[in-house]
Amino acid sequence: MNYKLLARVLGLLLMMESLALLVCFLFAVFDVGIGDSSSFALGTATSTALLFGLLLVFFGRGKYDRIPRREGVLIVGVGWLASGVIGSIPFLLAEPGLTVAGAFFESVSGLTTTGSTVIADLSEWPRGILLWRSISQWLGGLGILVLFVALLSSLGAGTKSLFRNESSFEAAEVSNAKIRDTALLLWKIYLALTLVCLFGLKALGMSWFDAVSHAMTCLSTGGFSNHNESIGYFSGWRTGLAIEMWLTLFMLLGSISFLVYVVIIQRNWKRLRNEEEGKWYLILIVLSVIGIVAIKYVLGGRELGESFRGAIFTVVSIVSSTGYGTADFEQWPVGTHFIILGLMLMGGCAGSTAGGAKVSRVILLVRSVHQEIIQAFRPHQVFRLHVNGNSINDQSRAQTVLFVALFWFIAIVSMMVVAILETAHGVDFETTVAAVLTTLSNIGPGFGDVGPTDNFSHLRQPTQIYLALLMVMGRLEIFAFLVLFVPAAWRKF
Amino acid sequence: MNYKLLARVLGLLLMMESLALLVCFLFAVFDVGIGDSSSFALGTATSTALLFGLLLVFFGRGKYDRIPRREGVLIVGVGWLASGVIGSIPFLLAEPGLTVAGAFFESVSGLTTTGSTVIADLSEWPRGILLWRSISQWLGGLGILVLFVALLSSLGAGTKSLFRNESSFEAAEVSNAKIRDTALLLWKIYLALTLVCLFGLKALGMSWFDAVSHAMTCLSTGGFSNHNESIGYFSGWRTGLAIEMWLTLFMLLGSISFLVYVVIIQRNWKRLRNEEEGKWYLILIVLSVIGIVAIKYVLGGRELGESFRGAIFTVVSIVSSTGYGTADFEQWPVGTHFIILGLMLMGGCAGSTAGGAKVSRVILLVRSVHQEIIQAFRPHQVFRLHVNGNSINDQSRAQTVLFVALFWFIAIVSMMVVAILETAHGVDFETTVAAVLTTLSNIGPGFGDVGPTDNFSHLRQPTQIYLALLMVMGRLEIFAFLVLFVPAAWRKF
Ligand SMILES: [K+]
Ligand SMILES: [K+]
Repeated sequence: MNYKLLARVLGLLLMMESLALLVCFLFAVFDVGIGDSSSFALGTATSTALLFGLLLVFFGRGKYDRIPRREGVLIVGVGWLASGVIGSIPFLLAEPGLTVAGAFFESVSGLTTTGSTVIADLSEWPRGILLWRSISQWLGGLGILVLFVALLSSLGAGTKSLFRNESSFEAAEVSNAKIRDTALLLWKIYLALTLVCLFGLKALGMSWFDAVSHAMTCLSTGGFSNHNESIGYFSGWRTGLAIEMWLTLFMLLGSISFLVYVVIIQRNWKRLRNEEEGKWYLILIVLSVIGIVAIKYVLGGRELGESFRGAIFTVVSIVSSTGYGTADFEQWPVGTHFIILGLMLMGGCAGSTAGGAKVSRVILLVRSVHQEIIQAFRPHQVFRLHVNGNSINDQSRAQTVLFVALFWFIAIVSMMVVAILETAHGVDFETTVAAVLTTLSNIGPGFGDVGPTDNFSHLRQPTQIYLALLMVMGRLEIFAFLVLFVPAAWRKF
Repeated sequence: MNYKLLARVLGLLLMMESLALLVCFLFAVFDVGIGDSSSFALGTATSTALLFGLLLVFFGRGKYDRIPRREGVLIVGVGWLASGVIGSIPFLLAEPGLTVAGAFFESVSGLTTTGSTVIADLSEWPRGILLWRSISQWLGGLGILVLFVALLSSLGAGTKSLFRNESSFEAAEVSNAKIRDTALLLWKIYLALTLVCLFGLKALGMSWFDAVSHAMTCLSTGGFSNHNESIGYFSGWRTGLAIEMWLTLFMLLGSISFLVYVVIIQRNWKRLRNEEEGKWYLILIVLSVIGIVAIKYVLGGRELGESFRGAIFTVVSIVSSTGYGTADFEQWPVGTHFIILGLMLMGGCAGSTAGGAKVSRVILLVRSVHQEIIQAFRPHQVFRLHVNGNSINDQSRAQTVLFVALFWFIAIVSMMVVAILETAHGVDFETTVAAVLTTLSNIGPGFGDVGPTDNFSHLRQPTQIYLALLMVMGRLEIFAFLVLFVPAAWRKF
């Protein structure tokens, strides 16, 4: 294990976080003055991040021409945890303040773009802190470390391993030499989309502060809002429907593979025609909306127009793993809950900012099952699986299927852990299931006592820390997180 | 598709079912006379089974020296559905009677050894029908078709495909030539264990009728009881604890691989030492009992001795997929529910009468994950997975992992279906989840409104039929069931 390299990369990461915190600090000073608790909290966080960053970079000084695979895997996991800890300082020190576990939960929920919150009343909190919540999601969105790769190309070829653990891109599609260019391009696309979203929201009547915040939490499919009612706050406005539609569009854009934009920029129309994942993603969204409207309208006797409006926004918000809310879907018939649950588990497309299992994995799973069944009859036929026009080798396929199986294994064990931690408080079955799945899939809201109108503040501190770890695990697609707990990973060999 | 062969095997299957029905008919006549509704119902069922059996055998006359793979797969699925339909006749015609869907549910629940019931009050039902419930589970236990293989050796080598789809035996462990001998041996072992269980129950004070019924539903890990309180009926007796312990022992014996008995009979001590599945099964049972007792005692403040008694019986009843009840585990702290849920999903050992995913699959899954993590660091090292001392090739491993992923996929889709079917009736989240998982894993009781003190009669008829199909799917380990819906399977090619 090359601890010096690890320290250097981690140090640079924390220095970048300090820059983001600095922006919030300056905003707070400008907004409410240097004497406010939020300015103090953000200033402390900024300097702590900078201090540790400098110390780590100093410790890790030297020349490195690549990041080896093992170090790459570890950096991703440690990096996320360390920035989570530093990012919790503002929530801890600012008024009204959170507990240690609550602050860690909120910080990790931001950086992993989960968007679950322990804050019961957002109106009590200073705007500097709210801005930090939004910026942390935007940073987390395309991955702190993809940004990092884009900025620090000096680290060279080894960044590929970072990149792969980070963003679930198909490694085969990105050539080693082009990693840096691609990362920079992704960063620009992300920025451009965010700006378009921002100006649209401003044009639709949002304040600059709300427009900036929501643009950042929308493209990152993070889902933090500055309002207790989430997007429901704007729904009553004359432009309410337009705001919902605009956000729906950008949640979609944030949750399809960013490689699609690269392909469009490169005018690679052949590859674009092969884009199955995006196609199926849209088909499943349309089917889910129709399903929910049918259940609400036919079985639940709700109003048709209102049903469509609520269903479209909710389906896209959930499947893209954003978690914005306009309607309380817990009031809908139970049949719709399982459609929502299915969407939560699937998530958006690989190579996007979305969480969940990813559409391409579901496609691969369904095709694998079909292949197995056909092979029961034709044992000697050789099959070749394709997704997006790319041939999938047996190893990738095995990893994908294993991911799905492992996801469930971890989910069940986590439900046991949460239920045991909460035993004395009597959290119910549905809440336990929902809390685990919504954090592990980086969605945000769940069902039961952690539903769209609730928050996670009533859970015990150990539970909050455990759920925060689940968010990191989900964001790292499990394997890269589990690696942190394998002693062999830390030994020199 | 060789329809004649299919007809012949199916016909013989129904004739065998008619023999089991005949036993119940004769018992009913002896017990309550020929004029009783139960005698009429069982007589009608017996003759219907015999009639269709004869017709099918006549249609399928000819000479066959083997059952091809494809026909083997289809026979298993069609056979189970057809015997389920015939087996529902007694429940339909006897007083007090069930609906069509309810009768099918009860019949399939018996034959698949699930043990979920739609009968609210068993004391209203004649003993002939109760006997049919128990016998159907016993028949289903080791698999109607393993029995069948044992009895109809004339079909020869092709029975291997039946055998494999039936009992999740590792095909590699059973040589083609020895299939018939092994099947016969398994049948004898099963019979012997049932008889030992039976005489033990009689010695402990049960009536002959109860002893026979419970011995049959215990070894088959079916879990039907003749009493509304299930085994709780006997718990208050002076011998109550002894009865629970005796049943616990035989639930365990029914849920470890029957190959272990074959190995013992063959004095193959080397193979026995390699038996990892049984070892881990027992370890997990002990850990679960300790976990539940700890939660109940430390957190729930329950009494220690009583906690152990309830925990041991419940853990073995659930993990072996029997589903007998003594305690209402819904009254236990929520933390225990997720341990029980985990046990439900895991199930017993492969090659036993138990349902669920099977311990060997869980072992394989955990080892695969471990291997993937290690390979992240040593990409060029070649690994070889072993379970029970047998090397697992990549294809078997892929199928196993795919099974787990597919199980969840089907479970989520089924929860949507059940929730939608029940929308108007407002069945809650927990009940929906539990109803799907308990039927798909062939357990019996679930949580919520289908918990250990409830039954499935309040569900709508379409839901009951859907859940009955899930039982068949679970019993056939999904693949062999899905095959029935692939048109290619039915075409000649
Ligand atoms: K989110
Ligand atoms: K059962």
